[in-house]
Amino acid sequence: MRFTVTYRIRAGDLAEARARADAIALEQTVEIPRAVVPPGYIEDDILGRVEETGTLSDGVFQAKISYSPDSAGEEFSQFLNVVFGNSSIQQGIRVTGVEPGETMLARFPGPRFGIKGIRARCGRATGGMIAPVLKPMGQPPAAFAALAAGAVRGGADIIKEDHGLAGQDAAPFEARVEAVAKAVAVANAEYGRNAIYIPNLSGRADQIEARLRFARDAGAGGVIVMPGLLGFGMVHRIAQDPGLDLPVMTHPSFLGPWVLNPDTGMDHGVVFGTLPRLAGADISVFPNVGGRFGFSAADCLQIAEACRAPDGPATAMLPSPGGGMSVERVADMVRMYGQDVVYLLGGSLLADPPNIHLAVGAMRKAVDAAES
Amino acid sequence: MRFTVTYRIRAGDLAEARARADAIALEQTVEIPRAVVPPGYIEDDILGRVEETGTLSDGVFQAKISYSPDSAGEEFSQFLNVVFGNSSIQQGIRVTGVEPGETMLARFPGPRFGIKGIRARCGRATGGMIAPVLKPMGQPPAAFAALAAGAVRGGADIIKEDHGLAGQDAAPFEARVEAVAKAVAVANAEYGRNAIYIPNLSGRADQIEARLRFARDAGAGGVIVMPGLLGFGMVHRIAQDPGLDLPVMTHPSFLGPWVLNPDTGMDHGVVFGTLPRLAGADISVFPNVGGRFGFSAADCLQIAEACRAPDGPATAMLPSPGGGMSVERVADMVRMYGQDVVYLLGGSLLADPPNIHLAVGAMRKAVDAAES
Repeated sequence: MRFTVTYRIRAGDLAEARARADAIALEQTVEIPRAVVPPGYIEDDILGRVEETGTLSDGVFQAKISYSPDSAGEEFSQFLNVVFGNSSIQQGIRVTGVEPGETMLARFPGPRFGIKGIRARCGRATGGMIAPVLKPMGQPPAAFAALAAGAVRGGADIIKEDHGLAGQDAAPFEARVEAVAKAVAVANAEYGRNAIYIPNLSGRADQIEARLRFARDAGAGGVIVMPGLLGFGMVHRIAQDPGLDLPVMTHPSFLGPWVLNPDTGMDHGVVFGTLPRLAGADISVFPNVGGRFGFSAADCLQIAEACRAPDGPATAMLPSPGGGMSVERVADMVRMYGQDVVYLLGGSLLADPPNIHLAVGAMRKAVDAAES
Repeated sequence: MRFTVTYRIRAGDLAEARARADAIALEQTVEIPRAVVPPGYIEDDILGRVEETGTLSDGVFQAKISYSPDSAGEEFSQFLNVVFGNSSIQQGIRVTGVEPGETMLARFPGPRFGIKGIRARCGRATGGMIAPVLKPMGQPPAAFAALAAGAVRGGADIIKEDHGLAGQDAAPFEARVEAVAKAVAVANAEYGRNAIYIPNLSGRADQIEARLRFARDAGAGGVIVMPGLLGFGMVHRIAQDPGLDLPVMTHPSFLGPWVLNPDTGMDHGVVFGTLPRLAGADISVFPNVGGRFGFSAADCLQIAEACRAPDGPATAMLPSPGGGMSVERVADMVRMYGQDVVYLLGGSLLADPPNIHLAVGAMRKAVDAAES
C-alpha cells in the first residue's frame, strides 16, 4: 500500500499547480526528466503519482502525491527524503499532511510506550504531567543531581535535562547521567514517587550507540532526541530496539525554519506531531503559546491534535508544551490542552534552586486544582 | 578563544535589536532568565556575550555574539545547538556568519582532503571536475555498475550516487556499493583513469557505522552525507576518523527551509559553505543557478566563496553546483565558478544510458574548451 503526502502549493493557476505537482513526483523519486523515466517497475511503481489536485484559495493549491514503500525501504531518513527531500528547497511548497498507509506503518510502528506507557511508568494515571528541566549548563553533575532530587520531592513526573547538556567538561555525559539517575532513584524511594529521568542524548555520531546503552544501564527512563540535529531516524532507531526499552522525548532545537514561513517547510502538526509519532517518539516538546517563540494557540492545538489523534498514525503520544509556564497560566493551559499533556517547567523554577521542591510542588498543586 | 556568530535581526529600533540580541545570548546558552544566571563561571564564561550591535537598514540590525568553547564541548551537533538551536524557532533572526576561532578550529579542523586532496585522488590537477550521478532508484546494482563504468569511460572525475539510493530492496546498500566500486575500479584500469566513486550514506542510525566500514573496504572513494537528515555531526564524525580515510560530499536534501526565507534560517553561504567546511566536508553540493530550485547567481557565488575562501575556516573545499547543467551552459558556468568546482551532471545524461560515455565525454570536452 502506497503512502501519501499532501502538499500546499503556490501557483498562478490550477494548471501550473498540476505541473508543479508532477515535478514534485519526479523530484522526490526518480529525479530525472519525465521523458527518460524507464518503463515498467520504475515508471509504474517507483515514480510518485499525483492522486489529486485542487484549489484552496486564490493562488494556493493542494496536491496529494502517493509513493511506493519501495522508494523508502526500511529507513526513516530515506522515508523523509521521499516525503520532502529536494522539494524542500523549492519556494512555495509546504507539506501539510503525511499518511503512512499500512505498509509503512508496519515498518514504522510508532511509539512503543505512548500516553499509556508513559503514564504507567510515572505512576500518574490521570491528569497533566509536569516535567521540570535541569539547567543551566556549566554546573557539575552534583548540582544537577540535587536539582533532580528536589524536583522529585516536589512531585515531578519527569525530570528532563536541558537540550544543551551534552558532553561538556563541566558535566560529562556519563558522570552526569549516573549522578542524576541515582539521585532520582533515591528520591523516588524516599518520597514514594515514580518520576522518570530523561537525559539529553548527545555525542559524536560514533559515540551515540554506547551512550544509549550507558543511559539504559544507569537507569535513565528515556532519552531526549533533537531531530533537527541528530535526525528523525535516530528516534526510529531507539524506538525500534526492545533491548533499549527507552522512551523518546523529541526536542524542537534547530527545527525552527521548518515551520516559520507558511509557504515552505511543513505544518506545525507535521513537524512536531505526525513525524515524531511515526518515528516512534513518546513525548514531543514544542514551544508553547504565549512563551517567547510566537507560536499561536492554533499552531499548538494542531500539534496536540497530531500527537493524540486516536485514529493514528499508530499509538497516541504526549504533546509537551514548553516555555512561559507559570502557576498563573496553569488554568488556561489545562483548558487548552486537557489532561494528556506534559508541561515543561523551565527557568522560572530556578529562582531559588535549593527550594526547587516548593516551586515544583506549587505547580503540581495548581495543575491538580485546575483539573478538579 | 571564544567563537562568534553573526545574526541579522528584525526589530523596531536599535534598542529592541539589542534586547533581542541579549535574549539570543541567554537562549543559546543558559536558557534561563538573566536574573537567575548563577554568578562566576556560568555568568562570566558560559553565558553568550553580545560583542556588538549595529543597524543594517530600516528595521534590520546585526549583532555579533560570542560563546565559550566550553558551551559546545567537542561535539559538532552541540556546537550547532549553541550557534542557532532554539533561536532558530524565533521569527526575524537569521545567522549570516560563523567564526569558529582558534579553539573550535582545533576541535573541528575542517576538510581532511579539501580541493588539493580531491584533485590528487581524481588525478585532475587543474580544471573543473565533472561528476555524473547514478540514478534513478529502482534499478538493480548491475545497472548502476554499468552506468558507472560508462561514466568513467567518458572522463568523469567523480561517480556520484543519487541521494535517494539508500537500502531499498532493488539495490541494497552493500550489494550496490560492491558492484559499483568494482565496476569503477575495472573501468579506471581499462581507460587509465582515477575516477572516485562516492556512494550515498544511508541506513538506520545503528547501521551507519558498519556501512561506513563496508564502503571503505569495498573501495568507495568517499561518501555522500545529507546533513538535513543525518546531521552535520555525521560529517564531522567521518572527517575525523583517519581509519576511514573517506572524503565527504554533503548534499542539500531536507535543508531547503534553512535558506528559503531571508528573515529566518541561515545565509546560503553558511548552510552550504561555512558549516559543511567546518564540519569537514570536502565537496558541498547545492542547487545551481538557472536550474529548478530558484537559487540566484548571488546565492551560488556566496556559497562558492564560503567553500573556497583562502582565509578559512580551515582548508578550502569544493563547491558542487547541481541542476540544469548542459553543454550549452558550460561556458557561463566556467566564467562564474572558475576551475575549483565539481559540476554535477544529472538526468540529462540518461537519455541513452548505454551511451552515457558519449554524454559525459561531451561535457568534459565542453568544460575543457571553455577553460582554455
